[in-house]
Amino acid sequence: MSSFVLKGDICYSISKDTLKTIKNGYCVCENSLCQGVFEKLPEIYKNLQLYDYEGKLIIPGLIDLHTHAPQFSFRGLNMDCELIDWLNNNAFSEEAKFSNLDYAEKAYSIFSDALKNSATTRACIFATLHKEATKTLMDKMEKTGLVSFVGKVNMDRNSPGNLCEESADISAKTTQEWIENSINKYKNTYPILTPRFIPSCSDELMKKLKALQQKYNLPVQSHLSENKDEIKWVSELCPDSKSYGDAYNSFSLFGKDAKTVMAHCVYSSDSEVELMKENGVFVAHCPASNTNLSSGIAPVRSYLDKGLKVGLGSDVAGGHSLSLFRAISDTVQMSKLYYRLVDASAKPVTFSEAFYLASKGGGEFFGEVGSFEKGYEFDAVVIDDSILPHPQELTVSERLERAIYLNADFSGIKAKFVRGNKVI
Amino acid sequence: MSSFVLKGDICYSISKDTLKTIKNGYCVCENSLCQGVFEKLPEIYKNLQLYDYEGKLIIPGLIDLHTHAPQFSFRGLNMDCELIDWLNNNAFSEEAKFSNLDYAEKAYSIFSDALKNSATTRACIFATLHKEATKTLMDKMEKTGLVSFVGKVNMDRNSPGNLCEESADISAKTTQEWIENSINKYKNTYPILTPRFIPSCSDELMKKLKALQQKYNLPVQSHLSENKDEIKWVSELCPDSKSYGDAYNSFSLFGKDAKTVMAHCVYSSDSEVELMKENGVFVAHCPASNTNLSSGIAPVRSYLDKGLKVGLGSDVAGGHSLSLFRAISDTVQMSKLYYRLVDASAKPVTFSEAFYLASKGGGEFFGEVGSFEKGYEFDAVVIDDSILPHPQELTVSERLERAIYLNADFSGIKAKFVRGNKVI
Repeated sequence: MSSFVLKGDICYSISKDTLKTIKNGYCVCENSLCQGVFEKLPEIYKNLQLYDYEGKLIIPGLIDLHTHAPQFSFRGLNMDCELIDWLNNNAFSEEAKFSNLDYAEKAYSIFSDALKNSATTRACIFATLHKEATKTLMDKMEKTGLVSFVGKVNMDRNSPGNLCEESADISAKTTQEWIENSINKYKNTYPILTPRFIPSCSDELMKKLKALQQKYNLPVQSHLSENKDEIKWVSELCPDSKSYGDAYNSFSLFGKDAKTVMAHCVYSSDSEVELMKENGVFVAHCPASNTNLSSGIAPVRSYLDKGLKVGLGSDVAGGHSLSLFRAISDTVQMSKLYYRLVDASAKPVTFSEAFYLASKGGGEFFGEVGSFEKGYEFDAVVIDDSILPHPQELTVSERLERAIYLNADFSGIKAKFVRGNKVI
Repeated sequence: MSSFVLKGDICYSISKDTLKTIKNGYCVCENSLCQGVFEKLPEIYKNLQLYDYEGKLIIPGLIDLHTHAPQFSFRGLNMDCELIDWLNNNAFSEEAKFSNLDYAEKAYSIFSDALKNSATTRACIFATLHKEATKTLMDKMEKTGLVSFVGKVNMDRNSPGNLCEESADISAKTTQEWIENSINKYKNTYPILTPRFIPSCSDELMKKLKALQQKYNLPVQSHLSENKDEIKWVSELCPDSKSYGDAYNSFSLFGKDAKTVMAHCVYSSDSEVELMKENGVFVAHCPASNTNLSSGIAPVRSYLDKGLKVGLGSDVAGGHSLSLFRAISDTVQMSKLYYRLVDASAKPVTFSEAFYLASKGGGEFFGEVGSFEKGYEFDAVVIDDSILPHPQELTVSERLERAIYLNADFSGIKAKFVRGNKVI
């Protein structure tokens, strides 16, 4: 259990509307938990090790609520298509390669290195349907020191021959073996149940997954209401469900006792939103992906107003960047276009709100995570924004906004702490 | 006059639909002009100096058709507002500082360094209304080795007291002095007439600017139809004009004998578009800015279909990044949202088209610029995309798309040539 003090220009969210900044402040970690932020270092902490990052920005580690590790290799490639074509042309053919462990080893090394060097400290990650390659990914994630939920993907229907499990039975059995192997193996890496999406999972499989979810008390991640064609398809596959979300809910894989994060929610109906709120389902808002795949823009303002649990996802490789800095500015930008082009009553998301979503908002999926309030798990990232020279005086909060818009995470990261451990 | 050969993986546009790529090819510069691209180096060029960039990407220098040098210092700052508020809160107060030459010296050093180190080789740049500071900017731009049009801004009405010229007469006189001083002073830096936009220029000033335009045969840059409130304001200021563009045209400052580039064109009416086409007015498409200021999305597909002259602009600091790589991916992304949210008949802009806009499309404003076809002025940028590791084989065009989406211009630039001179 580590204890130390960080000194620097500290920024963190208390709530979506309250972004606190302290110039030349002290952030205290005791036994891996945050003891709070102080303008002057209290006497009782004077003997702790001090990391002096004076003049640098110190922020909570950011949370990526939705990303696909095997897709990292084709991020930014062949982007001129929509979801279903994109899945068939890009995603499925690349994911099929992960039956080859050598390829998985190579690809997941690149992914985990990149994630380690980003501003992300915690992530919910899709692997592929391959049990062995998923273990490889989990081994690599554990080595980064980051905290992650990693999911072996389930898909037993409507999938290409080389990327489809033979039966619901085989899918569930393989999944159980993978859970048994991984559930107590790591300190920072955990299995998460990952039915790809309703179209690729038979009813029989979903029932078996619920049984596993209950037996091992696992969280759940999947996709929801990303694209209109996809929603129509789901309504044909599940004629008795009131919504796409209700289809998950009919198998009890939609929040409540099964902690659940759903990516996208671009076109969630009122009843679906109501159900998410009731069941405490997290929304992983993925603005880059929703733009790249011509899906649309999710109504984040309305989710915030309704008090839904919302965080951000890079959704690599629908999204082309692993950067949560980019996801923050994308969230603001896309909300402005939603306001301008879709609904003039939906006030754009502010910078403060978007920063909150990437930190404390998504952090809640992991517990008390994503802020520097007392009692929070200690995840922090130190950014050297002097790589962005400027002629005028800037406040700490101005420097934060600028560092995020200008993606100073690419080259500005100086240090990173996760659960009180220094990983960079 | 320099002559040499570049070897590497070469990418360039012939037309918007034809992006040529040559692996391990040769691009020949003779007397500062491109002689074309070859799979094998022709015998006659064997004695020229060879720069070996094997394994790296070689692209034409990119063209920034619209940016504001004094606004570079607040890019990515205080982004939570719209055009008119943003002008008053951010742009005007920062620009007023450029009456101080020390400040201008400092700020323009940072701007010109950044532009030099980007993938941009040519730019149309707004300065401020200050004659001396504009000279400072031109001196600095000349030192970069890039080619630029730089404009002292004109504004004699509807502007804050500390950023408004006293009269049309004084504005025109100061402008003439600046033109006389700069028109033959530099090798690569030229004055461009820069009425800020209709709201800030009196009729009297516009008439005087036309006289200067004719006397010195200057090109013109300004803003057009960016925001609905702005358009309404112009229609009130110019009740006799059929459109915002027609207001410029009524002073003969809208193409024809006055080569003109207009930034934005988000809400250009049919008649305005017709006039742009007729007069050969260039559109500087600025997707990041139009998003950040909640302006909307310009209908680029329709401009391409109608055969308008179009290029891209970073529009710093409405746009937060000076990167044309970012402007290319933004162009594709925003066109997808336009297609999804505004007009389902407007097919998204392809990567090939967006790359064309950033190179050959905008290059036409500078002459035969922005391609590696025979006779083109020799501007080239070398990108080391090995900073982006990948587990699979990639074609040259896939690597180009990926390098652009992932902003490999930030740290991947290995060399840069402008008019045959090596500037990096």
